[in-house]
Amino acid sequence: MAEFFTTRTVAAALADFRPARRTGTETVSLRDALRRVPAGPVTAPHPLPGFARSTVDGYAVRAADTYGVSEGLPGYLTVTGAVRMGAEPDTAVTPGTAVAMPTGGVIPPGADAVVMVEYTAEAMPGTIEVVRPVAPGEGIVRADEDARPGDEIVPGGRPLRPQDLGMLAAAGVTSVTVHKKPVVTIFSTGDEVVPPGTAELKPGQVRDATASALAALIADAGGEPAFGGIVPDDTGTLEKALRGALPASDVLVISAGSSVGARDETANAVARLGPPGIWCHGLAIKPGKPTLLAECAPISGMAGVPVIGLPGNPRSALVVFRLIGMPVVRLAGGCTAPPPQPSTRARLSRDLASATGRLDVVQVKVSDGAAIPVFGVSALLSVLTAADGYIVIPEAATGLDAGSEVEVILYG
Amino acid sequence: MAEFFTTRTVAAALADFRPARRTGTETVSLRDALRRVPAGPVTAPHPLPGFARSTVDGYAVRAADTYGVSEGLPGYLTVTGAVRMGAEPDTAVTPGTAVAMPTGGVIPPGADAVVMVEYTAEAMPGTIEVVRPVAPGEGIVRADEDARPGDEIVPGGRPLRPQDLGMLAAAGVTSVTVHKKPVVTIFSTGDEVVPPGTAELKPGQVRDATASALAALIADAGGEPAFGGIVPDDTGTLEKALRGALPASDVLVISAGSSVGARDETANAVARLGPPGIWCHGLAIKPGKPTLLAECAPISGMAGVPVIGLPGNPRSALVVFRLIGMPVVRLAGGCTAPPPQPSTRARLSRDLASATGRLDVVQVKVSDGAAIPVFGVSALLSVLTAADGYIVIPEAATGLDAGSEVEVILYG
Repeated sequence: MAEFFTTRTVAAALADFRPARRTGTETVSLRDALRRVPAGPVTAPHPLPGFARSTVDGYAVRAADTYGVSEGLPGYLTVTGAVRMGAEPDTAVTPGTAVAMPTGGVIPPGADAVVMVEYTAEAMPGTIEVVRPVAPGEGIVRADEDARPGDEIVPGGRPLRPQDLGMLAAAGVTSVTVHKKPVVTIFSTGDEVVPPGTAELKPGQVRDATASALAALIADAGGEPAFGGIVPDDTGTLEKALRGALPASDVLVISAGSSVGARDETANAVARLGPPGIWCHGLAIKPGKPTLLAECAPISGMAGVPVIGLPGNPRSALVVFRLIGMPVVRLAGGCTAPPPQPSTRARLSRDLASATGRLDVVQVKVSDGAAIPVFGVSALLSVLTAADGYIVIPEAATGLDAGSEVEVILYG
Repeated sequence: MAEFFTTRTVAAALADFRPARRTGTETVSLRDALRRVPAGPVTAPHPLPGFARSTVDGYAVRAADTYGVSEGLPGYLTVTGAVRMGAEPDTAVTPGTAVAMPTGGVIPPGADAVVMVEYTAEAMPGTIEVVRPVAPGEGIVRADEDARPGDEIVPGGRPLRPQDLGMLAAAGVTSVTVHKKPVVTIFSTGDEVVPPGTAELKPGQVRDATASALAALIADAGGEPAFGGIVPDDTGTLEKALRGALPASDVLVISAGSSVGARDETANAVARLGPPGIWCHGLAIKPGKPTLLAECAPISGMAGVPVIGLPGNPRSALVVFRLIGMPVVRLAGGCTAPPPQPSTRARLSRDLASATGRLDVVQVKVSDGAAIPVFGVSALLSVLTAADGYIVIPEAATGLDAGSEVEVILYG
């Protein structure tokens, strides 16, 4: 049983606990692609915008025809036509002529610049005066200025952002090959735990708060939560339930019972699942010490499925899942560039003590630039719901002084 | 037409453009409630956890029985029973006795503290020695410590976070009354615009990039995007399309054509929709000046539906929609406490000029603590996809110096 008590640091878990399991790929339409993770880079199939466009309303000209003009000495050009939006120009620009241009219109042959309408005036019908010179290329977007054929327009591994979908649409890419969402099966254990829908509790019973919150965190990490149900604190029953879920799961999460006995049952059941087995049983974090991380590849040659055994009380479980579990879910789903987390800088309102070698997560409210710790025993979920975010006191620190500047990771 | 050219600041738009339209409510299950906006506060129907629980593994005792004990002078207590998880205790604690407790178990009658197992040892079968005193209440969570009946467990108007779902589950609240998602109908105009699925473009045509990206931003703001399609640059046709979508829409968004003519058609069509009409036509922002904001209540007594006419080029449209449109969508959906935005502090890599009285939005890459502006004409979507985020140069500033610390709002 000694292996069960290997305690590791959070930093080590983030760096070294990297089970090999990755989801396969599927093709989704652009409408369903927000935050999905492209399986590889997507490149532009052709130049974008695809034709030289005007960036202003004005007149397509030969730049040389405007050299030296000024308010005092305007140049005169004959207007030989007008470009219509979405249509090919039917007039070329020749020396001494100009063609009227809407913003976004196709630059006619012969033109190499567009004079803004503000720098022109109608001198007489069919003739404009130009009061400012333009350089070649001015007022024009080149045919391949937004993308050249083969340019990477979105990278693999980074969840698609709104503007990425816009770029794909511009390129005519209406479906994307993405990683499947990792299926994360949640098991709850604990003889005291009953489903949230239980209206009347018997003495000693508590409703399963953790599974609902975990499902939300899993969705935020790009995963697909699956509920494995509530399993009694019994090694054999739990092992059977976990083994049953393994083939269809990319990650297993066990919200363990809170007592030492229940935690032992969980560790025993996970140990039986298969190699490589338990990676740590105990994390140097507060709250959240009784965390178990394991990797199981029950079939030879199968990539190891990560198994995360969370502490028994909801608050500790959610703290640990945010720090350790969400990166594991992202990894399984092929996300190599996680999205940024909202955060803010604030001044700590009071001293905080911390043991060296242990990472402390302290829930805080943020008010007027101050980070005010919310205290309470780790069993209290209300500490998490009252908090705006949390601060991390790293392993090396022995605490933080009142007034020191801290980074608060904000809950969104 | 003079009213069409009322230019306003971004600050004024955020403070004063507040159409009255709000969505109704609906009831959703906890599984579907993440990020949904509760229509009002939800209160605890009964105390939580509902019974006094142990926070440690150990022994329930009368604290007075442990006063004065130490390593050198332990106290001795007779173990009269053990509490099982999820079950009512069958033994009370009387003077001189102790009952074995698992973490999370029900505190038996007569006990007022729990001694951690680490501070006890079995002296002989049925008797423990206690080497540390405990105070009354130690090792115990009170029956109403997480929530008293009637306590607000989630506020109205703030999107539900993962831990909020956990708290609702703990309280047995399995469905929540939330604001309906605001339906945001997107129209694209522009005679040059064709659907993203168009494989071969004719000269002068561009695919509709903006609508796909807008739909994603609308979803991020808690809205339900609806596609109204691509409408020709014609006042009558556009008016008819907008009027048709009004009854089923909580917000209308028009991704306008890029030319002055197309923008005029949009303004004319919106002006005909009904009072109170156009609020501004022109925002003091770069890029994004040709933005139109209006409110239309075509039926007397109907709350005004916000109408947002966006600039014709995708990049400007998306910049403006992030700053102005997303708050409008949130407001329509009853969200009064928007989620925090990811941001980071960085040093500007070069000088940036800006005109006073105009808010500038500059796209940047972030690398090694430096914010590096990404330049390009406002028609280029690739400027947005290359950026990690953006910085805002406020109206009052005339620019920013290289090396100054800036806040970068990060794209997630």
